[in-house]
Amino acid sequence: MVTRLSHLFLRTLREDPADAEVIGHKLLVRAGYIRRQAPGIFAWLPLGLRVKNRLEQIIREEMAAAGAQEVHFPALMPREPYEATGRWDEYGDGIFRLQDRKGADYLLAPTHEEAFTLLVKDLYSSYKDLPLTIYQIQDKYRDEARPRAGLLRGREFTMKDAYSFDATDAGLDASYQAQRDAYERIFQRLGLEYVIVQADAGAMGGSRSEEFLHPTPVGEDTFVRSAGGYAANVEAFTTVAPEPHPLDGLAEPVVFDSPDTPTIDTLVAHSNAVLDGEYSAADTLKNVVLALTHLDGTRELVVVGLPGDRDVDDKRVEVAFAPAEVEPATAEDFAKHPLLVKGYIGPWSPEGPVLGEESATGIRYVLDPRVVDGSAWITGANIDQKHVHSLVAGRDFTADAFVEVASVREGDPAPDGSGPVSLARGMEIGHVFQLGRKYAEALGLKVLDENGKLVTVTMGSYGIGVTRILAIIAELNNDERGLVWPASVAPFDVHVVATGRDAAAFDLAEKLSADLDAAGLDVVYDDRPKVSPGVKFGDAELVGVPRILIVGRGAAEGQVELWDRRTNERDVVPVADALARLTQR
Amino acid sequence: MVTRLSHLFLRTLREDPADAEVIGHKLLVRAGYIRRQAPGIFAWLPLGLRVKNRLEQIIREEMAAAGAQEVHFPALMPREPYEATGRWDEYGDGIFRLQDRKGADYLLAPTHEEAFTLLVKDLYSSYKDLPLTIYQIQDKYRDEARPRAGLLRGREFTMKDAYSFDATDAGLDASYQAQRDAYERIFQRLGLEYVIVQADAGAMGGSRSEEFLHPTPVGEDTFVRSAGGYAANVEAFTTVAPEPHPLDGLAEPVVFDSPDTPTIDTLVAHSNAVLDGEYSAADTLKNVVLALTHLDGTRELVVVGLPGDRDVDDKRVEVAFAPAEVEPATAEDFAKHPLLVKGYIGPWSPEGPVLGEESATGIRYVLDPRVVDGSAWITGANIDQKHVHSLVAGRDFTADAFVEVASVREGDPAPDGSGPVSLARGMEIGHVFQLGRKYAEALGLKVLDENGKLVTVTMGSYGIGVTRILAIIAELNNDERGLVWPASVAPFDVHVVATGRDAAAFDLAEKLSADLDAAGLDVVYDDRPKVSPGVKFGDAELVGVPRILIVGRGAAEGQVELWDRRTNERDVVPVADALARLTQR
Repeated sequence: MVTRLSHLFLRTLREDPADAEVIGHKLLVRAGYIRRQAPGIFAWLPLGLRVKNRLEQIIREEMAAAGAQEVHFPALMPREPYEATGRWDEYGDGIFRLQDRKGADYLLAPTHEEAFTLLVKDLYSSYKDLPLTIYQIQDKYRDEARPRAGLLRGREFTMKDAYSFDATDAGLDASYQAQRDAYERIFQRLGLEYVIVQADAGAMGGSRSEEFLHPTPVGEDTFVRSAGGYAANVEAFTTVAPEPHPLDGLAEPVVFDSPDTPTIDTLVAHSNAVLDGEYSAADTLKNVVLALTHLDGTRELVVVGLPGDRDVDDKRVEVAFAPAEVEPATAEDFAKHPLLVKGYIGPWSPEGPVLGEESATGIRYVLDPRVVDGSAWITGANIDQKHVHSLVAGRDFTADAFVEVASVREGDPAPDGSGPVSLARGMEIGHVFQLGRKYAEALGLKVLDENGKLVTVTMGSYGIGVTRILAIIAELNNDERGLVWPASVAPFDVHVVATGRDAAAFDLAEKLSADLDAAGLDVVYDDRPKVSPGVKFGDAELVGVPRILIVGRGAAEGQVELWDRRTNERDVVPVADALARLTQR
Repeated sequence: MVTRLSHLFLRTLREDPADAEVIGHKLLVRAGYIRRQAPGIFAWLPLGLRVKNRLEQIIREEMAAAGAQEVHFPALMPREPYEATGRWDEYGDGIFRLQDRKGADYLLAPTHEEAFTLLVKDLYSSYKDLPLTIYQIQDKYRDEARPRAGLLRGREFTMKDAYSFDATDAGLDASYQAQRDAYERIFQRLGLEYVIVQADAGAMGGSRSEEFLHPTPVGEDTFVRSAGGYAANVEAFTTVAPEPHPLDGLAEPVVFDSPDTPTIDTLVAHSNAVLDGEYSAADTLKNVVLALTHLDGTRELVVVGLPGDRDVDDKRVEVAFAPAEVEPATAEDFAKHPLLVKGYIGPWSPEGPVLGEESATGIRYVLDPRVVDGSAWITGANIDQKHVHSLVAGRDFTADAFVEVASVREGDPAPDGSGPVSLARGMEIGHVFQLGRKYAEALGLKVLDENGKLVTVTMGSYGIGVTRILAIIAELNNDERGLVWPASVAPFDVHVVATGRDAAAFDLAEKLSADLDAAGLDVVYDDRPKVSPGVKFGDAELVGVPRILIVGRGAAEGQVELWDRRTNERDVVPVADALARLTQR
């Protein structure tokens, strides 16, 4: 059925919405695709729903081709399964929780690992039932602290989440690869450039994890890649540590006066002035005091030691200490530990070790992997206005653990030996994840193997943010006049515009619309009788259907105009040619 | 793509689920269509999702044919619009409410009148933009006190809800009719018998309201109909009151002893023994004390007077006093009103009027319309063990209001004069509703009319419970062996079963499945190699695809068996005939 613009529920807007931060969001609102209902929560108008449906259809086709089967879970889920895996608490403030009239706890599910695991446990019991990959396309919820950029980071969003179930590790590898391949095909069909990067697998308890990132300078994720093919997001990057040095014969630590040197820069300048040698920030040991809030609500101070030329990276810290929440230590925290002298903190003082579980403070001390045994450092002496030099790791202080929290820099060596990395930014558009046996163990999902022995199932989890991808596509495909959809997800295949007051033009436009519809194309026809060509063209450009067919003055002579929205090329052609070109897929 | 049973995520169950109350629900669970997640909340497995999608597709087609356009709103909605119309409070315990991390109030929307109204207000401003009908198919939530019967009354359910917007009453009538016609076509396509009954329009504030009921003895709704074409649900039925009598010359009230007559039956027997005359329950005035809880939390007693041969109907009472909640008065309530003598309550005592806003108690007194002026009654005298006779309405007592709360009986006259009504039961499957201007007024939706004057828009609201209808279809279409889907919503068009160990049978079944698929049919193929024919047939019967094609022993000779699931007829036919019959639509 041809959609008539005179009938379509659409009002294009001239003004950008007041709360819109990014161009794609502005245009989706102005062109009548979505409307805001609450922060990060949107309604879908007819045009938006069409694009979303097309996007979902592409995903469904590729899921089917990968052997995945569609199911559908409710958004409102009971607490119990999330309690069993610890996620009810782990989510913190990030989810919507509620109670029913009887006081039973529920959540609006941000993801459904537990429910899928329990469903398979309910129905399947043998390795012969596996492999199995099931998925849903479903509206999910997260109570984001700062919902922003429209659909890019909403509080309600549509996800395709798939889960694979296998009896063996090799099976999981194959299921993982099938989803990974399907994702590549989906992004290729959408014309969406992507980089597959290693991702941190930690918090979810799994083994292998990769993200599909769309590389863009405005992306919120940073990733690294080497010319040799290594790619990882910064959270997953692992440091290449130097070789440790022998401890024998190293100079003993010397405390020295360092007035007014609370920063690395002032310390380096002062050291070069008063000590024998030429020092840089990399020779100093920076000690950053963090306060962790654990799931049970307890607060713990941890000190991170890292070379003075590195900063603590917020995202890497978040992952390293998850599920605890991390913030800088407060004045109150310092007040409780008088042995720590702010601006002059170090792991050691002339009275002995200050940091570490076995030390005077008992505060956990964790180190960047570059602080290898035998390396000597200038660092705080825990005495006001004094530092110490020649303080040797492995002799004068030791780490309770090594952590990957230091910032990653352009030129750092890739961990696989493939050369120095460069940094880039991207937006996450998909995530594939080997969960392994964590969920199956927590929820008791086992099957009988070939020998009649019960084995725990191994799982994968695979997500694509449908509404997020739609927002990214809008963000990437526009110009100063409006949206320019890729044909694969455009709300219509052809936008027919009748112009002028000549009945012949309207008659022909009507007929061509019907012909294109009959040929299987989705057609929107601007049949509005008293609207000027300028307004019609403006609306067509804003709405962004990639191919526009103008039927106007030449209609009586059988001439129409084909307008390519992307290239802005306009060709006057005979009707038959126009039809032929438009129906050519 | 042919769906293979060896691959399909399906496990049929022999046992009925413990919590299932109705046959349709039992079978939907046993045949692998749905799984319970929490009370009244279900997950959809591949088979269930297929049926649901087909049902939604039929609804979408008929909505499009009726000129309605699809949009989609979030389930999570902010409080404000519901506050503006008073529904935030009116819903009481019946909805799920929650707060976000900033403490802002939200609800899981049970219906979206406000949001649709605001959307149209946002975008449209002229009568030229109207008429407009927009709809969504969306997952909704109600916190039912007793979710039951599986999908029939769930806490999460899928609805098609449409809303029409018109500048004039005539426009609303036309939009209403278009949806009503679409509903008729939908139910006809689904093969679902229906009766259109007048429904109460009160609580929603509208004018015209009709329900589509599927007539069935196990329905939870009661409706009445006359041979002359009247049909209404009991809430909407209006009483034909007798003519009032003149008051002149009527006997004065007489208090008489009536020991141990707290019930109507004992009162009638005693009256016939001690009074001059022959009385029946219809000559007594029953007074029922109800306690209303208003939205603001205040509690109010109300007494309903009605002929002693009628009961107060729970549903009619609910509608009559909505949005207040109604329950029988408690001992505590009585204790506060010593003038009311339990078992002997009446509107009058020898000291004067007892009930009514102007009376000694100040308790509101409302009457059944049959208690017309000049009618004389036997009723309580508010003195223990005493009644009064010859108490005349309009002289000795008056009503604060008349209410339709008395039970409706077989044989009661239809209000339109079309004869006596009979009672029947049904299940609600759809509802069409002229909301009028209530929502538009509350939310300020106005448009400019032809004369440039602002007029308030008039609206309609039209709902179909998608998952409820699916449940009803399952409830109606089954036998002792399983489900029997109507072709219009069956999960597949054909269920191909290969039997035996003969490779020829499997090869032919494979080929026929592919041929049927190529012909545009949805095919499930039971390709399981080591499963007995008995198990395969049992599964096919339980799953309930209406047409089954068995490929077995006769395969080598080109013979196959067509099995009609509904009639249980089995015909052995040549392959070509089978294909011809199956592809004939």
